[in-house]
Amino acid sequence: MIKLNRETDYGVGILALMAKDAEARYSAAALAEIRGLPQPIVSKILKHLARSDLVVSYRGAKGGYGLARQPDEISVAEIITVLEGPIALTDCIEDGREACQYGSQCNISNVWSRINDVVLKALSEITLADTAIAEGDDGQGPIHTLEFTGVRHVREH
Amino acid sequence: MIKLNRETDYGVGILALMAKDAEARYSAAALAEIRGLPQPIVSKILKHLARSDLVVSYRGAKGGYGLARQPDEISVAEIITVLEGPIALTDCIEDGREACQYGSQCNISNVWSRINDVVLKALSEITLADTAIAEGDDGQGPIHTLEFTGVRHVREH
Repeated sequence: MIKLNRETDYGVGILALMAKDAEARYSAAALAEIRGLPQPIVSKILKHLARSDLVVSYRGAKGGYGLARQPDEISVAEIITVLEGPIALTDCIEDGREACQYGSQCNISNVWSRINDVVLKALSEITLADTAIAEGDDGQGPIHTLEFTGVRHVREH
Repeated sequence: MIKLNRETDYGVGILALMAKDAEARYSAAALAEIRGLPQPIVSKILKHLARSDLVVSYRGAKGGYGLARQPDEISVAEIITVLEGPIALTDCIEDGREACQYGSQCNISNVWSRINDVVLKALSEITLADTAIAEGDDGQGPIHTLEFTGVRHVREH
């Protein structure tokens, strides 16, 4: 089943929101409110992301979470890899031929390797900046969404 | 987990083999032998494929399974869709916003829609003809592989 984990689904949603103002710092509460997700789930995902080089956690009164890089420098492939591991359509791509009980006789692992490369390339070429544009397509511009839900986000001075 | 079912994995392998001679008819036994897969699994997959418009089952002495179209007219996206359903990275792509408990407040379904489109496009652009080329990359040319394993395949006269 070519389906992503829920955590990845929500994680992309959270990051797409943070991409609307890449310099801002966001609280888990604010992001949870906008996305309509439970705050504990959002906190867990943010902590997970902060252990990677996608998100930075700032402490103190002006703390919160912020993107570690500009949205056009963060690909969807990278986010998926952080949240659920390598993009590998079949076991053998991730763990080698031995991952499959028929591996010793397998001669199509490079067929899968090629297919996987195409998917990986496609996901590497979509960035958070693109997701912000896609979200804007529904008529809710980035600033509008943030204002509408009454979320404050603290800028660093 | 962005991972395909085993049936899809093996199915692509079987079809890639059949693509080496698109006019030939193959038996489940022959395909199973070359791929090193159990014949019951290969038979099950071939029956599944024969219910779609990818593979045709021929009866009689010169019977067997053959590709329904030329390899360059069969995309990997189509094969995945036949063997495991629509390519949908998140539940909402397949079943709409209601599929997710937070759907009513969701405003990133078009972000996922865009990401899914990119993956779908990538998989639609790889055809069985490409997989045959990829398999040839390991130095085992198509005819060589068939001859090497001693499999006979019956041509229609």
